[in-house]
Amino acid sequence: MISVTLIGAGNVATHLYKALKRAKDTTVIQWYSRNMSSISSFKNEVEITNDINSLKTADVYIIAVSDSAISTLSSQLPFSNELVVHTSGSVSLHDLDKKHHRGVFYPLQTFTKGADLNFTEVPICIEVENKVHLQTLKNLSEALGCKHYRVNSDQRAALHLAAVFVNNFTNQLYRVAHEITESKSVDFNILKPLIKETASKIDTLSPYMAQTGPAVRNDNKTIKKHLKSLDKDIHKQIYELLTKSIKLTHGKKL
Amino acid sequence: MISVTLIGAGNVATHLYKALKRAKDTTVIQWYSRNMSSISSFKNEVEITNDINSLKTADVYIIAVSDSAISTLSSQLPFSNELVVHTSGSVSLHDLDKKHHRGVFYPLQTFTKGADLNFTEVPICIEVENKVHLQTLKNLSEALGCKHYRVNSDQRAALHLAAVFVNNFTNQLYRVAHEITESKSVDFNILKPLIKETASKIDTLSPYMAQTGPAVRNDNKTIKKHLKSLDKDIHKQIYELLTKSIKLTHGKKL
Repeated sequence: MISVTLIGAGNVATHLYKALKRAKDTTVIQWYSRNMSSISSFKNEVEITNDINSLKTADVYIIAVSDSAISTLSSQLPFSNELVVHTSGSVSLHDLDKKHHRGVFYPLQTFTKGADLNFTEVPICIEVENKVHLQTLKNLSEALGCKHYRVNSDQRAALHLAAVFVNNFTNQLYRVAHEITESKSVDFNILKPLIKETASKIDTLSPYMAQTGPAVRNDNKTIKKHLKSLDKDIHKQIYELLTKSIKLTHGKKL
Repeated sequence: MISVTLIGAGNVATHLYKALKRAKDTTVIQWYSRNMSSISSFKNEVEITNDINSLKTADVYIIAVSDSAISTLSSQLPFSNELVVHTSGSVSLHDLDKKHHRGVFYPLQTFTKGADLNFTEVPICIEVENKVHLQTLKNLSEALGCKHYRVNSDQRAALHLAAVFVNNFTNQLYRVAHEITESKSVDFNILKPLIKETASKIDTLSPYMAQTGPAVRNDNKTIKKHLKSLDKDIHKQIYELLTKSIKLTHGKKL
């Protein structure tokens, strides 16, 4: 049984709490938030607190707060030589106060308030300062039913950056498509099977092999027609740049 | 029972053939290709031909060839006043020879050679010159188990354009992510659950509502860090442009 104290009350903390609660072999000792109101609805199932000096002993302290608050919060913890991890993709392990046994427990997924998520599908990227704590974080991942990957800080930063491309930027392309279909009063839903298939295709093909469309075919007639029909400047710019990127990747003439 | 003659031997034609073959209530009368070798493996289950003058009568003739070949092929068909449709997203209905009853039967999906596809998940965009042929194309979609949508040429062009964004451009973002992870020797597979969740999230949230990340949070510190860590110029440009696009969409200061 791994005992956990959870620190923070945002999306990641809340999804993590629910997953820890559901898991066998883990127990949440306390849930701390500066602002009690955000976690008060859970007070009947877990001990909640806003008093950092009242924190009890646990196997792991998970700091799931905004990137900019991690460092200060870790130094305010009224103990030392305990295993303290943060959950951020982009913050260094060394941003945690050095009085702790430091680690990172980064769930690589997009967490939305209110949206349910199968936590067992979330890969956990683990980093530890001292190898002796590796097993605890591995066990914690396994208790949650998650795959875990040991990555160093550079690799975690690369994953966090790559995640912006496949999540935020991809979602923005969906948004552009939504604007294009709405401008002609067509149902955006028609595109959803294509969106799903695009995401599924890379299970069996690399993104390189999966590419299709006018850019990789070097079909400049269609590209010209598309560019002409785009109303917004920013849409044209995105079309031009990503077409250029595809052509570069596939060695086509620009 | 709807009888179909299929013209062409590319990815769309082949996937369509297999779906027609599987469907009840449809029969493939003939499959024509200029180049017999590409369809000869099917000769034991369907009549194949490379002689355009030998085409028999069918309820619908489906021209599934490259965009540039549609017009010429439709005029070479040795009959008139039959229902002839093409399957292209970007070619006008009027590119078909006017001796035919013209229509469009556009399956909006990405078709890859050899990759299996559940055709019942493919939305069919239908356009007809004369309303009397609408029912035949609706029935054909239904026989294939597909949802159908009646769209005009402008709307179909908008869908085809939007499809480039959600399919080709999204796939290129996956490719960029693949390059980023490879450069640090991290497993690209770690990103796949996030890719899937990004595509699934828009089932319940609009792309506008689903957006997260540094750009929509106006987290310029992280944006700066990301830009600094990107090695390739084209990756930096994509990062900058899509960040700008997200900020514009969400009314953030550029």
